[in-house]
Amino acid sequence: MNNEHLLSLRDFYKKQLLEDTVPFWFPRSYDPEYGGYLLMRDADGSLIDTDKAVWIQGRACWLLSTLYNTVESRKEWLEGARLGYTFLREKCFDTEGKMYFHVDRTGDPIRMRRYFFSETFAVIAAAAYAKASGDPEAADFARKMFGICLEYAQGERRIEPKFEPTRPAKGIGVPMIMINTAQQLRDTIGDPRCDGAIASWITEIETYFVKDDIRCVMEQVAPDGSIIDHIDGRTLNPGHAIEGAWFILHEARYRNNNPKLIDLGCRMLDYMWERGWDKEYGGILYFRDVYDKPVQEYWQDMKFWWPQNETIIATLLAYLVTGNEKYANMHEQIHNYAYSHFHDKEHGEWFGYLHRDGRISQTAKGNLFKGPFHLPRQEWYCWSILENFINQAT
Amino acid sequence: MNNEHLLSLRDFYKKQLLEDTVPFWFPRSYDPEYGGYLLMRDADGSLIDTDKAVWIQGRACWLLSTLYNTVESRKEWLEGARLGYTFLREKCFDTEGKMYFHVDRTGDPIRMRRYFFSETFAVIAAAAYAKASGDPEAADFARKMFGICLEYAQGERRIEPKFEPTRPAKGIGVPMIMINTAQQLRDTIGDPRCDGAIASWITEIETYFVKDDIRCVMEQVAPDGSIIDHIDGRTLNPGHAIEGAWFILHEARYRNNNPKLIDLGCRMLDYMWERGWDKEYGGILYFRDVYDKPVQEYWQDMKFWWPQNETIIATLLAYLVTGNEKYANMHEQIHNYAYSHFHDKEHGEWFGYLHRDGRISQTAKGNLFKGPFHLPRQEWYCWSILENFINQAT
Repeated sequence: MNNEHLLSLRDFYKKQLLEDTVPFWFPRSYDPEYGGYLLMRDADGSLIDTDKAVWIQGRACWLLSTLYNTVESRKEWLEGARLGYTFLREKCFDTEGKMYFHVDRTGDPIRMRRYFFSETFAVIAAAAYAKASGDPEAADFARKMFGICLEYAQGERRIEPKFEPTRPAKGIGVPMIMINTAQQLRDTIGDPRCDGAIASWITEIETYFVKDDIRCVMEQVAPDGSIIDHIDGRTLNPGHAIEGAWFILHEARYRNNNPKLIDLGCRMLDYMWERGWDKEYGGILYFRDVYDKPVQEYWQDMKFWWPQNETIIATLLAYLVTGNEKYANMHEQIHNYAYSHFHDKEHGEWFGYLHRDGRISQTAKGNLFKGPFHLPRQEWYCWSILENFINQAT
Repeated sequence: MNNEHLLSLRDFYKKQLLEDTVPFWFPRSYDPEYGGYLLMRDADGSLIDTDKAVWIQGRACWLLSTLYNTVESRKEWLEGARLGYTFLREKCFDTEGKMYFHVDRTGDPIRMRRYFFSETFAVIAAAAYAKASGDPEAADFARKMFGICLEYAQGERRIEPKFEPTRPAKGIGVPMIMINTAQQLRDTIGDPRCDGAIASWITEIETYFVKDDIRCVMEQVAPDGSIIDHIDGRTLNPGHAIEGAWFILHEARYRNNNPKLIDLGCRMLDYMWERGWDKEYGGILYFRDVYDKPVQEYWQDMKFWWPQNETIIATLLAYLVTGNEKYANMHEQIHNYAYSHFHDKEHGEWFGYLHRDGRISQTAKGNLFKGPFHLPRQEWYCWSILENFINQAT
């Protein structure tokens, strides 16, 4: 990419974020009456459900706080962030201190799930909000919740098992989310536990999940890293592994462009681009089987928004840290595919769910699983790394 | 339909069942080494997983027993049924007497789920096997398991709740499966509890789930039958409701063509054909929203095999009990759509998962959720009701 191209990409991501994506969600999604956000919306922004998904309440609070911290100290964003932070603290915990997955508009609980991802998103929300607000209680809360996440991740705090002990497995999801959670905590209010923890989770991923012999990143493996040759064990999630790749490339930049981490992140991206990029229609497919057998999950060959967002970040970051034009080309491919197929030119933001061939499957912009996160994070992150790169180069 | 058409349909279903569908599965799926069946197969019959789905082990045992009971007392089918019956009894229970959802080839447990559908399929398997074998222990086991299912269905035996008590709901699934389980038990070895129980579950469905004012059968409702206006509560499953319709039409026939039951079954079929039939591409869609809002489940507009099977049965049965040519036309439409899009002319049986436009999404014939049940049951049932109708008419 020449300098002009870099500048125009930077301007594009900035403009999309601030003039298209964020205005789709805010201010209309603030819920001053009950706290938090009303995010379950159809293509035109009309509300399809007043319920609140706890993951997404946390993610939206993180976004608003991050905009306040890094773009402009706009009062609306800080007050909006406070709505989410307060709702998370006051409404989303059960009596034993575990966070719900799904609550109603008022905060009454609908569903608890066994995972601790509500907690990880509460950490990044509270950490970013603590930086934005200067509220020391928010910082304490973020650090306390991070400690709880560490206990879950290290098996010291028990998660109700979904499977019997016959065939033990571990997933890439926990080390991945913990890397990103620690990175966000470090980038906002800081915490001495972050560097060591990130390093150990990267080692975990490299040791057990990255398979150079077959050019693959596994989504789950046996405790010793071997491939579990059953339907679930063979199922790959290319967009997820590519998200993990850019968390590691982000860490490489933080560690003065550490060459081993650059190599690891780029291998993960290369392998899963080979597995996930749809040569026929473009875009990243949802699931693949490691041995090309049929994938059981029904939406396996659909195109969801978030794997495209993660791949847009990973390819751009790989290009910026390596200068390898291969990644610039990959970035251009995924960027052009995604913005031409997912972006809603009429109402802003992206559709979430396309069929393999690019037709829209359903029109919701927000539901229990989609909200203001992957797309605005991508636009914000790409803008920010381009800004940084351009400034360093001049 | 004229008589010639009825005869040719009867011959078609018989031939498909015995020369195409059943030979795809058996004898190759018998597992004499560990018991049960190896049913997770790709399009060409190659094995993609040796695991065993407990629902489908029961359903396959039911099928083999039913073929033995109603088609021909072929020794292979009886011995095959015994493999499944024994595996269910010896390998699929935990220490507290609850049945697993998923076990490995040897019967070691992989996953327990909260629902009691493994138990309902064990009832129909054991009842049909008891009739085939004359084994009184199998009959006792079927009746005992039916009693356990009754306790679950009536709330006397506790199921771990998935949701918090904030927004109570009940589903059509339990009354539906219990109607069919009781019908199968009654049709094989008989049980005095069946008639009354079936009548009360039909009343439950009519009272709470069938909405004449909006021409709809709800998949779930609040305890008082009101519609829960949130994403999950609005989600309809047309193929499932149509399956319920034919269970009720089956009951109507059993009760000397009871006109109220015929009317109820036909209303359910009419309403959900209107909601589920895809006017653009043909076939029954998986999910719809009662108010035409976006459906959250990702595969909502795919075409799965089983809703087509259930609709083939329901339309044919509605035609035979009413003589209304409307249902003959609907039957012809769904029959032609399904056999031209789902049937695998090369290897036999049906593909399970098509995109909305009829393209194949993935090729598995068997997995954790698909096996020898909906298709062979449809072919067997349609053959048998046509045979019966033709014999009565002559």
